[in-house]
Amino acid sequence: MKKLINHPDDVVTEALRGMEQAHGDILKVNFDPAYIIRKEPKKGKVAIISGGGSGHEPMHGGFVGLGMLDAACPGAVFTSPTPDQMEAATKAVNAGAGVIHLVKNYTGDIMNFQMAADMCASDNIKVESIVIDDDVAVKDSLYTAGRRGVGSTVLTEKIIGASAERGDDLAAVVKYANYCKDNGRSMGMALTSCTLPAVGKPIFEIGDDEIEMGVGIHGEPGRERMKLKTANELVDMMIEPVLSDKGLKNGDEVILMLNGMGGTPLIELYLLYSRAVETAGKKGVKVVRSLVGNYITSLEMQGFSITLMKAGGDILKLWDAPVHTAGLRWGI
Amino acid sequence: MKKLINHPDDVVTEALRGMEQAHGDILKVNFDPAYIIRKEPKKGKVAIISGGGSGHEPMHGGFVGLGMLDAACPGAVFTSPTPDQMEAATKAVNAGAGVIHLVKNYTGDIMNFQMAADMCASDNIKVESIVIDDDVAVKDSLYTAGRRGVGSTVLTEKIIGASAERGDDLAAVVKYANYCKDNGRSMGMALTSCTLPAVGKPIFEIGDDEIEMGVGIHGEPGRERMKLKTANELVDMMIEPVLSDKGLKNGDEVILMLNGMGGTPLIELYLLYSRAVETAGKKGVKVVRSLVGNYITSLEMQGFSITLMKAGGDILKLWDAPVHTAGLRWGI
Repeated sequence: MKKLINHPDDVVTEALRGMEQAHGDILKVNFDPAYIIRKEPKKGKVAIISGGGSGHEPMHGGFVGLGMLDAACPGAVFTSPTPDQMEAATKAVNAGAGVIHLVKNYTGDIMNFQMAADMCASDNIKVESIVIDDDVAVKDSLYTAGRRGVGSTVLTEKIIGASAERGDDLAAVVKYANYCKDNGRSMGMALTSCTLPAVGKPIFEIGDDEIEMGVGIHGEPGRERMKLKTANELVDMMIEPVLSDKGLKNGDEVILMLNGMGGTPLIELYLLYSRAVETAGKKGVKVVRSLVGNYITSLEMQGFSITLMKAGGDILKLWDAPVHTAGLRWGI
Repeated sequence: MKKLINHPDDVVTEALRGMEQAHGDILKVNFDPAYIIRKEPKKGKVAIISGGGSGHEPMHGGFVGLGMLDAACPGAVFTSPTPDQMEAATKAVNAGAGVIHLVKNYTGDIMNFQMAADMCASDNIKVESIVIDDDVAVKDSLYTAGRRGVGSTVLTEKIIGASAERGDDLAAVVKYANYCKDNGRSMGMALTSCTLPAVGKPIFEIGDDEIEMGVGIHGEPGRERMKLKTANELVDMMIEPVLSDKGLKNGDEVILMLNGMGGTPLIELYLLYSRAVETAGKKGVKVVRSLVGNYITSLEMQGFSITLMKAGGDILKLWDAPVHTAGLRWGI
């Protein structure tokens, strides 16, 4: 195993220390139990918390800060955080206006966030849980009943983060969260596998001329193992189900995230993005905002995912609002 | 070869199209000859141009915009751009206050930027060339007489970009460029090789338990082929020559860039960053600003580099000034 680490047991803690040192103006880290919180909390604000296994950076810790998350709970690599992490993070950022747990649809995350919400309820903290399940690749999966939660989570964190930041109440922020849940769709693919530090070998085997179409962010199987195709063919294969699942149609405006899985060169992501914009355009779907880069990753996996979210109502106003996190920053 | 491309000949053009589509608010692309320019030029400003082979994204095109570069010239992958690209870019952004060519020290880049400067001189455009040669790993290298130019280029682009943006004249911007040239030092290492689209096989072979210490951004050999070590050992081996070459000492303040080579997970970069801050701290060298992420890459290569720049005078003021590019943004 070739990794830039010291010991598999220390990877998450040492990386959290680095995050705090690099972004001490934005965030603070609590190490036991592990959570990342915004450095300067805002009084009376609806608090937004997310979390999940580590190894998907910058998600979620990289999205803690003004205009996005109040707290993130990092689990071990590709492992759900524990209810006590979530409960402690919730208590740390609860400002009395209610708390949202933004959960990606994986069995472990669902179970642990539910336990944490129950624990918080007995502390009289009102928690609303929103489950993101945007991956159109497969219906059920290795670690999931129902669709997996992937790229829409990033867009949702930005949009509801802006809503909470401007002072919307819990009901309003939940409404935006449900909008994002209903209007975001994603699909991914992988050229290569990745290796968990604690395991030491690739999480799946794949041939030199093969790809996994519809892969999950933990390397879960997708729709099909197939031969490598051109970039244009791949984008077209992936964007079609993403567009059609939500019934996106002529005249719709969308936010598009062309996301790298961690090991994909940026030059390839831009090339893929161009095709995605053009193929969506042929269906009359207009890309009005975008992210191109590594936002929800799977360690060093090579591959990419496409996320589209319909930009109705005042979604673009929330998207454009200032954000100041390690992984996303504008307007400030 | 597993790459997300259509045809090797089209990679750069298709990626440029994607950049323009994703960042149309920041930049414009001219396709023949190929160069990227800032969308809204600023009148009477010293113009700053850089360029080099593609495959190192976000450098340089990702640093075109307010507070950084006025133009970037992308060559083919790992290949110098041509003098006619540089001349055309220079003419496009020349605002009458003088032009700086910021050149990384590689034989092809030096030769072509020199030819371009000569061509511009005959058009009565005043060009000052600054050559960055910050890589302390080796004295001469495969494509370089003298030290290679690497990570300091990113920091220099930010700092002199801020100087030009606030209206400094050519002599003042050149002074800051020379400061950056004199005060930046870097060193890199690789776990894995990378594959050029036009070649189709890795640019160098490396064993499953080996690393290349002191690698160049085109996979040029470094100081030593050695067995993989722990992250802490690697950081300490690399930061020592970076600190000592410039004679950084107790009480000095620095900007630190912990840069990924393109295929390294962000979780590992934060872990490495933490050690770098602590090891520098033990020598009394204080990290006062930092970048952690992929800024000067080598396609999908796994590895990292460390760049330190002494932050004397008003360098931090220039560093903190607003910047709005695809790859770096704050304050706006």
